[in-house]
Amino acid sequence: MAKDYGEVKFFGTVGSPFAKRVQIALDLKGVQYTYFEEDLRNKSELLLKYNPIHKKVPVLVHKGRPLAESLVILEYIDEIWGSNHPLLPQQPYDKALARFWSRFIDDKCLPAILKAAFTANKEEREKGSEESLEALEYLENELKDKFFGGESIGLVDIAASYLAFWLPAIEEAVGLKLLTSDKFPKLHKWGQEFTNHPVVKKTLPQREKVVGFFKARYASIIAASK
Amino acid sequence: MAKDYGEVKFFGTVGSPFAKRVQIALDLKGVQYTYFEEDLRNKSELLLKYNPIHKKVPVLVHKGRPLAESLVILEYIDEIWGSNHPLLPQQPYDKALARFWSRFIDDKCLPAILKAAFTANKEEREKGSEESLEALEYLENELKDKFFGGESIGLVDIAASYLAFWLPAIEEAVGLKLLTSDKFPKLHKWGQEFTNHPVVKKTLPQREKVVGFFKARYASIIAASK
Repeated sequence: MAKDYGEVKFFGTVGSPFAKRVQIALDLKGVQYTYFEEDLRNKSELLLKYNPIHKKVPVLVHKGRPLAESLVILEYIDEIWGSNHPLLPQQPYDKALARFWSRFIDDKCLPAILKAAFTANKEEREKGSEESLEALEYLENELKDKFFGGESIGLVDIAASYLAFWLPAIEEAVGLKLLTSDKFPKLHKWGQEFTNHPVVKKTLPQREKVVGFFKARYASIIAASK
Repeated sequence: MAKDYGEVKFFGTVGSPFAKRVQIALDLKGVQYTYFEEDLRNKSELLLKYNPIHKKVPVLVHKGRPLAESLVILEYIDEIWGSNHPLLPQQPYDKALARFWSRFIDDKCLPAILKAAFTANKEEREKGSEESLEALEYLENELKDKFFGGESIGLVDIAASYLAFWLPAIEEAVGLKLLTSDKFPKLHKWGQEFTNHPVVKKTLPQREKVVGFFKARYASIIAASK
């Protein structure tokens, strides 16, 4: 008889790259869960109850106990459903590096990309582009195998999913070139491997919708600055 | 015979609250290490070699392998020197909450305090104060025992050491009142317990020097804004 892991609820939105992280982890591990699609313009009482501090998706509720923050949730998922498709390395030093790079993506890489893409001020945009290229260079050098996690998808790959799917959509929407195959051949190939992984592919939203969303965001920022 | 854990080097500065986190963890666990005091205006080649990305303290070098980012280092220390004074709870859910609150301190609490204390713009300062009080309120409600970690100091306590020692020094330096005993009785008492813990007490820098540092920082921000 299969082990009873208890009830799992997962709150996300179709377009949220952070919710997708959690969905990818759950799906890679074959966890059974009930999905709740949130409308962020009209948040549900359940979401506000389960994540009163950040009021954001993703939220994971396991056996009635809620957790927020995607990287925190990923580590929890890996600990509870550990044996099936491990996300973190076994060795403490490798584990620490995986945590370091996941944080690097959230603290350095994503803010730089948002600055490069969605700032009205031209100088700020250029500074954002420079910072993005520098951050991507570090990741390019860090990528030694098929995935950051080696031969299979791990914590850093899931944290970096923004770069594989959302960044190219942003580039198309705002006419920006950052993660090019000539500058970042390894990262570029990784992005294709990652988004074409059958489990990942099934979770991703429609590309045209995401591009449309970023186009609208960009237009509203430019309009507000005039 | 004691287990041989290998050589430990630790790079910090006397005044860095983030370096102190690492020092407190090492000292609580009784880890033997060689300390390297960095001059941040003239960073050593070793520091730049070991932390080329962030170029900051703290850095821990264990058996020749470097790690940066204080929260990443704390988890690593707990994993390697686990049995002596555990910093993280055993249960996965409690562990996830400890990670959540440590991140909350770094991502919400500290930026709000810095905004409240070291912004020239009055409106920004007031907004920072409001955000700080809101963040402190969450921590006040989360504090259920002597320490966040229960009866002994854990990950969240160490992450929150900024609130116990540096925040009161900031308040004195810039004439701000945030963590008052009437508004936050539990957090206030916790701060005293924490800073008076013999291991913590020994690591902390001289209070007058820290106050002086913050006074100078404040004066330079006000001067630059005029």
